[in-house]
Amino acid sequence: MRQSQLFAKTLKTPPKDELSKNAALLEQAGFIHKNISGVYSYLPLGFRVLKNIMQIIREEMESLGAQEVLLNALQDPELWKKTKRWEDKDLDVWFRTELKTGTQIGLASTHEEPLTDMMSHHINSYKDLPTYVYQFQTKFRNELRAKSGLMRVREFIMKDLYSFSRTEEELEAFYEQCAIAYMRIFDRVGLGDKTYRTFASGGAFSTFSDEFQTVSDAGEDTIYIDEDKNIAINKEVFTDETLQTLGLHKKTLKEKRAIEVGNIFKLGTKFSEALGLTFTDEEGKHKPVIMGSYGIGPGRVMGVIAELYHDEKGLAWPEAVAPFQAHLMCLSSKREAVQARADALYEKLQSFGIGVLYDDRQSATVGEKFKDADLIGIPYRLVLSEKTKDKIECKARTEKEARLIDEEELIGLFKK
Amino acid sequence: MRQSQLFAKTLKTPPKDELSKNAALLEQAGFIHKNISGVYSYLPLGFRVLKNIMQIIREEMESLGAQEVLLNALQDPELWKKTKRWEDKDLDVWFRTELKTGTQIGLASTHEEPLTDMMSHHINSYKDLPTYVYQFQTKFRNELRAKSGLMRVREFIMKDLYSFSRTEEELEAFYEQCAIAYMRIFDRVGLGDKTYRTFASGGAFSTFSDEFQTVSDAGEDTIYIDEDKNIAINKEVFTDETLQTLGLHKKTLKEKRAIEVGNIFKLGTKFSEALGLTFTDEEGKHKPVIMGSYGIGPGRVMGVIAELYHDEKGLAWPEAVAPFQAHLMCLSSKREAVQARADALYEKLQSFGIGVLYDDRQSATVGEKFKDADLIGIPYRLVLSEKTKDKIECKARTEKEARLIDEEELIGLFKK
Repeated sequence: MRQSQLFAKTLKTPPKDELSKNAALLEQAGFIHKNISGVYSYLPLGFRVLKNIMQIIREEMESLGAQEVLLNALQDPELWKKTKRWEDKDLDVWFRTELKTGTQIGLASTHEEPLTDMMSHHINSYKDLPTYVYQFQTKFRNELRAKSGLMRVREFIMKDLYSFSRTEEELEAFYEQCAIAYMRIFDRVGLGDKTYRTFASGGAFSTFSDEFQTVSDAGEDTIYIDEDKNIAINKEVFTDETLQTLGLHKKTLKEKRAIEVGNIFKLGTKFSEALGLTFTDEEGKHKPVIMGSYGIGPGRVMGVIAELYHDEKGLAWPEAVAPFQAHLMCLSSKREAVQARADALYEKLQSFGIGVLYDDRQSATVGEKFKDADLIGIPYRLVLSEKTKDKIECKARTEKEARLIDEEELIGLFKK
Repeated sequence: MRQSQLFAKTLKTPPKDELSKNAALLEQAGFIHKNISGVYSYLPLGFRVLKNIMQIIREEMESLGAQEVLLNALQDPELWKKTKRWEDKDLDVWFRTELKTGTQIGLASTHEEPLTDMMSHHINSYKDLPTYVYQFQTKFRNELRAKSGLMRVREFIMKDLYSFSRTEEELEAFYEQCAIAYMRIFDRVGLGDKTYRTFASGGAFSTFSDEFQTVSDAGEDTIYIDEDKNIAINKEVFTDETLQTLGLHKKTLKEKRAIEVGNIFKLGTKFSEALGLTFTDEEGKHKPVIMGSYGIGPGRVMGVIAELYHDEKGLAWPEAVAPFQAHLMCLSSKREAVQARADALYEKLQSFGIGVLYDDRQSATVGEKFKDADLIGIPYRLVLSEKTKDKIECKARTEKEARLIDEEELIGLFKK
């Protein structure tokens, strides 16, 4: 896209009211806009990153054999009363509202109840199981205090996956498969090295749940990492008893601040029993379906990437999620020949399927263009000028030195 | 996808509580699930159709040069007070709720206010204009009575596009471009023949707005069509004066029931003045930006397609939006050779990028498979059995007769 057309502008300085690094950077670079505390809009560059993250997650969900659906935000309290999650004392993030008829309804912060109810219309027999259902859907959470930029917000898209199994073994097998898919997602978006599968508190059904925690000083959680085993344990379950159960030793654990980027739960029969989701087994017996739930917030993932991938000049996106792959600019608007070469290169790169932000702004100075490129953080900056002659000056955002390369080499860069 | 894996099942009979044909058919065929009155979930087949419609709309928005964003549902009343749309007497579909802090907020039914406010942070000069911004986002409308299935619901995804121009001429030019793009969208999804650009009531800024109305007995609106001119006029502005203004004559107009599938509005400076969205022109003068807004609800479009494309046996999707292109089934599960051929054909069609629903269910009878195929309405039904030998029995959903064709001819069918 031509940058002269991009409506969202960068800011000269970070916004003053953002305490968190991720939101300050993303707002300054023109990726997001703050509407009210804990509520953000995604501008074109930000939405492109969000879509890239969602696409990676979607691919991994599809490879698990999960089926995509789209559920409703507006919730019938009756379903939630059956599972005892309607009252504030049981679930304290409800936004409540009412229909014109006076009927009270709520805005979903998660979807176990409506999905379990819906599945009870489709699952009857053991032959219908196991099955896996996911969605990307907007959740609403009435957080007392929104904070940490994109980390703790009141409205956000969540990828929530639910599993429906016949036996605990079947749940267990899928749960482990999903944990592996989650690590693959975090690897692919660039968080793999710093993300640990982390034991956290369980629930009625299992001793532990698993969180995926990314090490960052911006995190709200404290975790203890065993680097050899490549796992961690959340402070909330950090007791001698737990350590013994897990075969971990205090001496080998490192305390770190971390951000939860995903979590997976064994739900067992809590929801299926309350909401009547049963199946008939091979012997004709009625049994409750055994469930699991698995969440990732793509917006939070974007925030965490911003926290980890930046320097004093701005953002530096990993290639897999970057809004564009190349940031092209022509520094010689007076010379038509150079301009024509830049236009041609812009078209050519796009014809190879390479996403290009083309800084064709006539009014911006060289300094402004370079500053914006560093702030926006596209992986490769490409400069054409009289000095570069028939070559292209290419600089990776994460490297200090630029080098002159020819077109063929340039295109090779993106074919990895 | 293998139908044995598809969790959503068809129903033997239509649901009893659905008065509208579209919802009854879509529920019976396993495309949607009703949660509460006016609130539906999309099951895998329904979500595929919705995504296809959204993709067609997105392509047309991109070709208009519009930039995709994602705005917030939770709304700060202060913005809406400035435009006098916070009170029920001015906008009567608000869902209101409040933050834990006690601050009242609302759920957006449209997005002029937050977007205009956001754009005021990015638009300064005439050089920043014109610009076009769109999103696919969930709207909430507290309708007194939800009705007509997917036509009038309380929660739905809407594609809303907004234009920001310097002059009335610039707005006018884009408005006409957008009207053409809208007709292209309705053509592509299969509604072109029955959809008319329709004069409807305007607002403060313009005498008329334009609706896109699809002729259907299920519609809530009455329109008068001039078939020669290929335009229509909504009953709400059907006066002698209007007819004269538009050069239309009562004699040549046909009265029809119709469903509004899209609408476009010239907003003028109503929102930009109230919310301070101004620009500096070439002469240094501050002027309010001139706006337009342009909406299509992909879910409603899906409902209208269901209304128009069905027969007594079920749905019959146009190819461009169908959940899959081919519905393959093997009617000879006892013969391994036939089964192997069906498996191979399933893989082969997919390798050509053809979407296939493969009815591999062991427990379903031939009659059940045929009945489901007619109900679900995928454009081509492909049958392999001992009788078909090395050929494939291919039947278009809209034709009565099946014919035997070979693989090459089959693949040719989908290459159009």
